[in-house]
Amino acid sequence: MSNPLFEPNFYAVIPAGGVGSRLWPLSRMSSPKFLLDFTGSGRSLLQETVARLAGFLPAERVFVVTGSAHSHEVARQLPQLPEANLIVEPEPRESTAAIALAAAVIRASNPESVIGSFAADHVIRDQAGFESAVAAAAAQAEHGHIVAIGIEPTVATSAYGYIRVGALVGADASVAEVDGFVEKPSPALAAEYLASGNYLWNAGMFIARADRLLAAIELSEPELVRTVEQLATGWGAPETQAALPEAWSKIKKIAIDYSVAEPAAARGEMRVVRASFDWTDVGDFGALSDLSAPEPNGLKTLGDVRAISLDSTGLVVGEGGKVIAVSGLDGVIVVDTPDALLITTRDRAQTTKDAVAKLREMGHGDVL
Amino acid sequence: MSNPLFEPNFYAVIPAGGVGSRLWPLSRMSSPKFLLDFTGSGRSLLQETVARLAGFLPAERVFVVTGSAHSHEVARQLPQLPEANLIVEPEPRESTAAIALAAAVIRASNPESVIGSFAADHVIRDQAGFESAVAAAAAQAEHGHIVAIGIEPTVATSAYGYIRVGALVGADASVAEVDGFVEKPSPALAAEYLASGNYLWNAGMFIARADRLLAAIELSEPELVRTVEQLATGWGAPETQAALPEAWSKIKKIAIDYSVAEPAAARGEMRVVRASFDWTDVGDFGALSDLSAPEPNGLKTLGDVRAISLDSTGLVVGEGGKVIAVSGLDGVIVVDTPDALLITTRDRAQTTKDAVAKLREMGHGDVL
Repeated sequence: MSNPLFEPNFYAVIPAGGVGSRLWPLSRMSSPKFLLDFTGSGRSLLQETVARLAGFLPAERVFVVTGSAHSHEVARQLPQLPEANLIVEPEPRESTAAIALAAAVIRASNPESVIGSFAADHVIRDQAGFESAVAAAAAQAEHGHIVAIGIEPTVATSAYGYIRVGALVGADASVAEVDGFVEKPSPALAAEYLASGNYLWNAGMFIARADRLLAAIELSEPELVRTVEQLATGWGAPETQAALPEAWSKIKKIAIDYSVAEPAAARGEMRVVRASFDWTDVGDFGALSDLSAPEPNGLKTLGDVRAISLDSTGLVVGEGGKVIAVSGLDGVIVVDTPDALLITTRDRAQTTKDAVAKLREMGHGDVL
Repeated sequence: MSNPLFEPNFYAVIPAGGVGSRLWPLSRMSSPKFLLDFTGSGRSLLQETVARLAGFLPAERVFVVTGSAHSHEVARQLPQLPEANLIVEPEPRESTAAIALAAAVIRASNPESVIGSFAADHVIRDQAGFESAVAAAAAQAEHGHIVAIGIEPTVATSAYGYIRVGALVGADASVAEVDGFVEKPSPALAAEYLASGNYLWNAGMFIARADRLLAAIELSEPELVRTVEQLATGWGAPETQAALPEAWSKIKKIAIDYSVAEPAAARGEMRVVRASFDWTDVGDFGALSDLSAPEPNGLKTLGDVRAISLDSTGLVVGEGGKVIAVSGLDGVIVVDTPDALLITTRDRAQTTKDAVAKLREMGHGDVL
């Protein structure tokens, strides 16, 4: 089998939205998660995502969809991206609108296009494993399927949604039907999922022919598809740009999981490629801690920080060479920035968004 | 009985040394505890101490002994203090040297002087109670006794040393002999002390005639007394100032508790005035937390800080309007400064000095 990724029909779409409020105070409205270097690599998560795709795709076939608030920074971080491949939303309208617009724009230039949608803020280190899974998914997509990539779970975690694997497709044990998608489970349920071997982490990567994807969206959201198709027809023309804000303000906000993945799975139209490359969505500081190298003194660190542990374990994030001394706390998470500091525990890493909600409620919008 | 505090023979000596490393990172070598506003009053602990004494003493009878590193800041904070009343040590040599030098200088100008030594960094709010205890102690001191002030304990704490009360002196139930001094006890022992009613907190306040105090020191430290008497004879003269560094570098380092209080108690020469005014030595962040007003959201605060509690209790100290969000931690202590941050628990407040020791060991002297 030839590698379909190297065929001229495969395109990547990166919806770069979402603040990542569970990573506050690192992630802010003004500097969302995908624009930040969370791994100490010297590159933002978005830059890493694009670099990963550049392993097998020319820059001309990578599209980034982002909000007007961040488009300048995105363009600055991605000088290799052709200007036409940066699709700027006047305002965020959730993933279905972003991906559908990109799909319509890409299909207008290549009716045979297959697109893969990849989050801007995930971390994957196993490039070969990633490429191989995407190639397998693209091969399925060329046959008209909508394909998800599911990651073999390595721990029972409540942090991710899961894909329930259905019947195998053909002789290849790595491709199966999707029996259903399940939301983030309770810890007990996550343990059952892990033990069963029948559930995969939903990595939020969807691969499909552009026409097939738009048709699937159209079943539940015909208005949305009509809008993006109209916009795509005249994409790049001044009158389209002029009409965009009005059209965009009316488009339905719905996640691609609800507009496409779940209904398609219910109709038996989704397939999943079972993959085992390392993957994390860096959803919260617990996930971030897992990415950090262990430290002999008990505290993992991220950023230019001098952490001092006295009988403590956890993660300390700081900047500017600041000294952060932690005494007598296990599993602590400390995230220090010049104007905001978060202190919580590993167990509560998922609840950081509650702190953000409380800050908003209390009128501390300056640090959000 | 006339109030001996208003007699012309009573003088206050404030030894202003000691970094207060259990209050790091607020307290630093460059900005020790006594120079800082720990109570949110707008005045440093030293300024509060002097203001308290100004309630009954003219500024001419208040002496401050401090190190050359801090003398400019002390003078700046205390413009009312006559220049001659600021005794500057070339280097810190512990409390006996500081108090003995002040006693010798004061006695040189007034052989009948009675001096009270008061720490520069304690907090007392009950001015009347304080004055009344000092007056009672001064009355005893005029009769030749060395007098400590002991505070009725309100909780069983390991944070303070204790005075074991001996036989009552005369009809006044508030004056007794000192049976002995005991070091900071274990929690179990502290509980016994509290239950017995026979132990008082050692507030580190000693009142005695200057000549009597110097004689008591001379019994154990004759060299030290000879040195301070020589210095006091020519105090203020240029040749004395020139000789001071050399003489001071050789003087013995010993706390007044060991040179005077304990031996005098063993000889049956100490008396204690039993007092019940509020008093804390602000020895650590636990004590500081007790001084702070309770907050409805669960976190007490000190400084210009916006603290956000999610299921948390404790103390948050910050500056510059910084947002500090704490989630899921009970009895936490957070002390944030621009270059150093401490996170610990109420239970471990006394161990902050270990963090300071570790920082020194690791070469992070810039934040000490």
